[in-house]
Amino acid sequence: MAELVAALDVGGTTVKAALLDADLNALATTRAPTAKSADGTALAEQVAEVVSSLAEQAGTGSPGAVGVVVPGIVDEQARVARFSANLDWRDVPFGDLLENRLGLPVAFGHDVSAGGLAEFRVGAGKGCTDAAFIAVGTGIAAALLLDGRLYRAHGLAGEVGHIDVGHRIVCGCGATGCLEAISSASAIARRYTERTGRPADGAQPVVDAARHGDEAAVAVVSDALDGLGHGLKTLLTLLAPEVIVLGGGLFTAADYVLDPVREYLASALTFQRMPELRVASLGDEAGRLGAGLLALDRLHDR
Amino acid sequence: MAELVAALDVGGTTVKAALLDADLNALATTRAPTAKSADGTALAEQVAEVVSSLAEQAGTGSPGAVGVVVPGIVDEQARVARFSANLDWRDVPFGDLLENRLGLPVAFGHDVSAGGLAEFRVGAGKGCTDAAFIAVGTGIAAALLLDGRLYRAHGLAGEVGHIDVGHRIVCGCGATGCLEAISSASAIARRYTERTGRPADGAQPVVDAARHGDEAAVAVVSDALDGLGHGLKTLLTLLAPEVIVLGGGLFTAADYVLDPVREYLASALTFQRMPELRVASLGDEAGRLGAGLLALDRLHDR
Repeated sequence: MAELVAALDVGGTTVKAALLDADLNALATTRAPTAKSADGTALAEQVAEVVSSLAEQAGTGSPGAVGVVVPGIVDEQARVARFSANLDWRDVPFGDLLENRLGLPVAFGHDVSAGGLAEFRVGAGKGCTDAAFIAVGTGIAAALLLDGRLYRAHGLAGEVGHIDVGHRIVCGCGATGCLEAISSASAIARRYTERTGRPADGAQPVVDAARHGDEAAVAVVSDALDGLGHGLKTLLTLLAPEVIVLGGGLFTAADYVLDPVREYLASALTFQRMPELRVASLGDEAGRLGAGLLALDRLHDR
Repeated sequence: MAELVAALDVGGTTVKAALLDADLNALATTRAPTAKSADGTALAEQVAEVVSSLAEQAGTGSPGAVGVVVPGIVDEQARVARFSANLDWRDVPFGDLLENRLGLPVAFGHDVSAGGLAEFRVGAGKGCTDAAFIAVGTGIAAALLLDGRLYRAHGLAGEVGHIDVGHRIVCGCGATGCLEAISSASAIARRYTERTGRPADGAQPVVDAARHGDEAAVAVVSDALDGLGHGLKTLLTLLAPEVIVLGGGLFTAADYVLDPVREYLASALTFQRMPELRVASLGDEAGRLGAGLLALDRLHDR
C-alpha cells in the first residue's frame, strides 16, 4: 500500500514501531527488544519481521516505504550510522543494507533529529522557520531548524550537551563543564544519589522531591536548570531561534522547571532576542513519528 | 551598464566603494568620510554621488545594481537596519530608501555577513558547504554558511563574540565572560595598556611585542587565543563546520597566532571533528566584494 509507511524508533533496548498513514495515524503498533549485531544484519532482519507483522496486524499489504531512526551519529545523506554506542555500531551502512533486505524504499535517520522534525512539522514547533528542539534524556542533544530546514552537518551538528557551561564536573566525553554532565536526566539522578545515597530512576523523582522541599533535590535541580539556561543562552547567541522546544521527562513537570529557565535567560540575555520556550508535545512518540515523516518524504521523492 | 555593479562598504568613519564587473574586477574605486543622519537620507545622498562619480571615473554608464553593506543588525529580507551604533540608526529601511533615491536595484546587507559571503564564494572558504567566517576586529562576529547557504535569522545570528568563554571580565554588552571582551583586537589593546600603561593601536603591535618576548604582551595574546579556542570549540560543537575562516588584523601574524588556537582545539575537543582553520584571503576588501556579490545576485534575480 503505497500510501502507508512503517516507522521504527530503534533504541538501545527497545524497538518501537508503527504502521502509519499519510496523516501519521497509527493503523498498528508494536514493540520488541532490539536485535543487535555489530554489522547491523540482526536489526535488518528484525525490521523485516516487524514490518510484516505490522501489515498482518493491520490487514494491509506491504507499506510503500520504511523509516528507521537510531541513536548516535547518523550521516543521513550517506545513509550510514557513523557511530552508535547503544547499538555497538561503527560505520554501518544501514540504509542500503535494509533497502537491499526489504526491497522497499528506506529512509534512515537519527532519533533526536527525527524527533525534532516531528515536533517542527506536527508538534510544538509547528509553523516555525528558525527553531531548536532540545531532547533532555540520558544525554542532551538538539535538532536545529534553520531557515525552515533541518541542519545536520552529516550527523555532527547539534551536540548542545557538550557546550561548556562552566562547572567542574567531568563529562563522559572526557571534557569538563559539559551541559549534559549537570543537566541531563541521568546527571540529575546521579548527582541526587551522590548527595543523599538514595537511588533515583531518572530526573522525574528528583523533580518531585524538589517540589516537596527536599533540599538536596532542590539544589540538584536548580544546578541543572541553571546549566540549561546557560546552554540555551549560548545556542541562541549563535543561532537566534524564535522558538526552543524542550523535550524529555524533565519537562513533564513543566510548571516547575520552565520558569527558572526563563528567569535565567531574562537576566542573562543582554542584546539577544528572548526565544519562546515551549514544551514538546509528542513525548515518546516523537522519534517514531519523525521516522514516519522521513519515510513519507522518501515516498514523495520517488 | 547592466553587467556592472557599484559596491559600497559603509563603516562608522569611511565609505569604501568600487565599480565592479561580473568577475569582481574593480573598474574604479573611491573612499569618502561617511555621511551620517539618523534617518539614513544623508547616506543615501552620498551613495548616489559616489555611484555617479565611479561611473564617470570608469567612463561607463550607470551600473545595473548597487550593493551597500553596513555594521550592526541588518534584516536583509526586510532590507531594514534594525540597529547600527556606528551610524546611529534604529529601524532604518535603507534598502527601500536607497532604491527610491537611485531608481536602481539595491541589495542591502551586513558587513561581516557580506565579508563571509565573499570569503565563502571567492576567498579562503571557496568550495565549502558548512563553514564559519570569524571577523576579529573591534568586536567579534561570525558569518555562518550552513548547507551552502548563509544563515542570518534576520540579522541576529552569528554573535560569536558574546559566547561565554568563562572569564570574569565585563563586556560592553553588560554580560560577563563574552569572547570579545578578551579576544577582540580592542580587548587585546585595552588589556595590554591596562597592564603596561603603554598605548597600543589595535592587536597587531601587541602581537609584535609578544613575538619579541614582552611578557605582558605574551600573557594578553595567550588569553585572547585561549578565549578564541574556547569560542570556536562551542561553535563547532553546535554546528560542525568543515572549515573556519579567521579574519582581522590579528591573523596577519598567522604563523604566530594560528598554532596556539589549533593546539587549544586539539586538546579540548573530545568526539568533535577538528575543522580546518584558514586565514581569510580578502582582507579589507571582503566587505566591499561581498556588497558586490549581493548586488550581482540582485541583478540575476531580476
